[in-house]
Amino acid sequence: MDSTVRNRAPGPTDPPQTVARTGPRWDRRATELLARSVQVTDRGAQLATAEFADWLAERRREHDFGVRRIDFADLKGWNFLRPTGNLTHQSGRFFTVEGLRVRTSAGFFPEWRQPIIRQPEVGILGILVKEIDGVLHFLMQAKMEPGNPNLLQLSPTVQATRSNYTGVHRGAPVRYVEYFAGSRRGRVLADVLQSEHGSWFYRKHNRNMIVETSDDVPPHPDFCWLTLGQLHELLSRDNTVNMDSRTVLSCLPSLMEQPDSRLALTPDAEVLSWLTEHRSTHDWTIETVPLAGLPGWHRTEREITREDGRFFDVVAVAVEAGSREVPSWTQPLIEPHGEGVTAFLVHEFDGVPHVLVHARMEGGLPLVVEMAPTVQCVPANYSEDKRPRYMDEVLAAPPARVRYSAVHAEEGGRFRNAVSRYLLVEADDTLAAEPPPPEYAWLSVRQLERLTSAGLSVNVQARTLLACLRSVARPV
Amino acid sequence: MDSTVRNRAPGPTDPPQTVARTGPRWDRRATELLARSVQVTDRGAQLATAEFADWLAERRREHDFGVRRIDFADLKGWNFLRPTGNLTHQSGRFFTVEGLRVRTSAGFFPEWRQPIIRQPEVGILGILVKEIDGVLHFLMQAKMEPGNPNLLQLSPTVQATRSNYTGVHRGAPVRYVEYFAGSRRGRVLADVLQSEHGSWFYRKHNRNMIVETSDDVPPHPDFCWLTLGQLHELLSRDNTVNMDSRTVLSCLPSLMEQPDSRLALTPDAEVLSWLTEHRSTHDWTIETVPLAGLPGWHRTEREITREDGRFFDVVAVAVEAGSREVPSWTQPLIEPHGEGVTAFLVHEFDGVPHVLVHARMEGGLPLVVEMAPTVQCVPANYSEDKRPRYMDEVLAAPPARVRYSAVHAEEGGRFRNAVSRYLLVEADDTLAAEPPPPEYAWLSVRQLERLTSAGLSVNVQARTLLACLRSVARPV
Repeated sequence: MDSTVRNRAPGPTDPPQTVARTGPRWDRRATELLARSVQVTDRGAQLATAEFADWLAERRREHDFGVRRIDFADLKGWNFLRPTGNLTHQSGRFFTVEGLRVRTSAGFFPEWRQPIIRQPEVGILGILVKEIDGVLHFLMQAKMEPGNPNLLQLSPTVQATRSNYTGVHRGAPVRYVEYFAGSRRGRVLADVLQSEHGSWFYRKHNRNMIVETSDDVPPHPDFCWLTLGQLHELLSRDNTVNMDSRTVLSCLPSLMEQPDSRLALTPDAEVLSWLTEHRSTHDWTIETVPLAGLPGWHRTEREITREDGRFFDVVAVAVEAGSREVPSWTQPLIEPHGEGVTAFLVHEFDGVPHVLVHARMEGGLPLVVEMAPTVQCVPANYSEDKRPRYMDEVLAAPPARVRYSAVHAEEGGRFRNAVSRYLLVEADDTLAAEPPPPEYAWLSVRQLERLTSAGLSVNVQARTLLACLRSVARPV
Repeated sequence: MDSTVRNRAPGPTDPPQTVARTGPRWDRRATELLARSVQVTDRGAQLATAEFADWLAERRREHDFGVRRIDFADLKGWNFLRPTGNLTHQSGRFFTVEGLRVRTSAGFFPEWRQPIIRQPEVGILGILVKEIDGVLHFLMQAKMEPGNPNLLQLSPTVQATRSNYTGVHRGAPVRYVEYFAGSRRGRVLADVLQSEHGSWFYRKHNRNMIVETSDDVPPHPDFCWLTLGQLHELLSRDNTVNMDSRTVLSCLPSLMEQPDSRLALTPDAEVLSWLTEHRSTHDWTIETVPLAGLPGWHRTEREITREDGRFFDVVAVAVEAGSREVPSWTQPLIEPHGEGVTAFLVHEFDGVPHVLVHARMEGGLPLVVEMAPTVQCVPANYSEDKRPRYMDEVLAAPPARVRYSAVHAEEGGRFRNAVSRYLLVEADDTLAAEPPPPEYAWLSVRQLERLTSAGLSVNVQARTLLACLRSVARPV
């Protein structure tokens, strides 16, 4: 778009060489506005933080959603295609459930197959922000997603696939999308591609955007303006801020431009080298394969499940709403077995906050290896003698060392009851003094932020934890 | 590896909390050493720049290489597999020639098929550097590659696939690889994944490394220590510095840390947004397909070629050497039709150097769209009425506006006589004042350097031009 460069066409009185003007590459004003917004925790322009639960409950009553498990045979428009057995919508749109085969020279398992969701479109996850009464506010939506345990959570302003917003589905236009993809686009604070769950999605990535406007934005009852401080308060509540909101918030510019952001345990060149090393020392061949006949998996009338009961099922649901605005539909979902644990060990080295990052391989990630939390697992999947590294340290941490703890759900449009306890746990001096195993490294929070801003390097669970970590950070 | 973090195990007299120490995230010493090395243009520790051509000619006489075109039937160990027709080595190693199908909503051509090289391994391209007599020197190799027009060019210290350096081929060990992948690894100046030619390779990317050592490095007659200033001199010569060297040099830390590196025509957030936009506004489905039966292509005894004579052929060669050190072999190569033109339009806005970058889609790139030169084409492929944007401006530029011009070859291990004229051409004030089309944007050189350092964002042709641009930059 022409708006991406600040060239103007020469006017009659402009000599050409004076037209294009340089400016600062970084936007100090945004940093200052964000720093002010983060301080406003009790009351925003639209409502007090104490009133938020009532507002969300009101939206829930208004729409009166219901979701129930159904047989695959009761899905409308979805079929297991022959001969692949892939679960597909008759329109060719939305997404498909296929098989994935991973062969690798890394890890305990040289080969495995599993169901996976394939959705090649890049969607927009966008938060609109606006200065109101001198404070930056974020326009958040109360949005129902069938897989969320409580259905309604706080989502970004816009959460849309390209089919949604270009009108291929012929549904209602996506509200406010013109601020992100259309003619009214405002000033970009962040706009970067980020991966989503590499265990359940095949190479899925979305565009994470934060855009500032000075327009009069028309209100809508399902939307609410909140300060960054209010969002940080809400991030401490279970099942309130959805995954899409958390990943977009993680892309905000850093608020940590104090002098010690220039110090870290490991220089930036070595951090990038460590990621490069783990992206290139193993061979892997990753391909989609037919869903039918995956070894270890079988299909019943109601689910695709493993014979040993581990990992997850593919299921189907019907969604109904009491309000006229929201239509009914059916769709497949992935339902994991058991609550996950997702945690960073954190530690201050010379007063500089660091997190212990895991270079983790996930078969569906666009670049296969990304930076992940110290611990990311469902404990029930592991026997006593094969515990994931650092899981016991995290689960056994005394309360005084737990700096953050809340339960969050993953993408409720594709995953059912996929909840994890997200934790930030202080590592003690002994653990922090030990050299970690090769696939782990201590990064400063500022380094994690920088890699997040670059895109496709930090996985979605680590991005949630980054957003949570900022929500409990000391003011700077 | 443990060497990637500066934790140490606690010793008997170290209290744990004092063990791990932070330090600066950026390495000023490397910047200063590079700035000094770039000034040394006439004579390095090993030889004078004027002696280089004789040194290279001597290496050529020593090995006495010969390369000749052969029929496919005369390839040894290579076969067209049935039923796909894919050209494959019987060991399953090296690479394969397959078909690629691209379907896209972008551009003039909604679908096309073509031959493509598939080589899933990530290789190492590494330059070893060392301070000699107070000046940083780069260890470069005189290496024969069968596709280079003059066979022998200057390559990085190490240029190896993982099969090479892990010994799967059971060939000779790769000289000096222990400084990059083994126990002797030194201090990392750069280590990042970079894509290669997206028109001819399927998702190929290599690890680009620059590593500093203080060891006594054993000499070898095919290797030569050169200063960065000497390398910059050699970059102005035709067909001398090979593609692998050029891409590794492009990953060097910036030498442009003067104050005006903080100014640019477009803020960094908008630059990243522009790349994200072009990576996400179009759908594409890109798959490998059988080489046999690609529409518009046919196979003879000597080549796979297009009926209309455009683009490139797949051919076969036999390689022989007069010296006992180098074995003989046969292999396929891709041979493009005609010399290419690869150019950046450059312009100073408010004294800050900028380049006009093209967000370019190439079917084989890992993330499909990367930042590319203003012009990147083979003019012979285009009719008079369908000229690529800016090609005429570049080709018609008066000599006074040409800041750099030299002919370079692409990867000689896979491409035969794939040469382009690389150009840096000053845009006049009128052109610079016009808003460019949406898929073009003016980036400051510092912004292009930053995106190059991040990896997988700047294509290999643009990285060559970045190395060339630095070689003619004013001293800073």
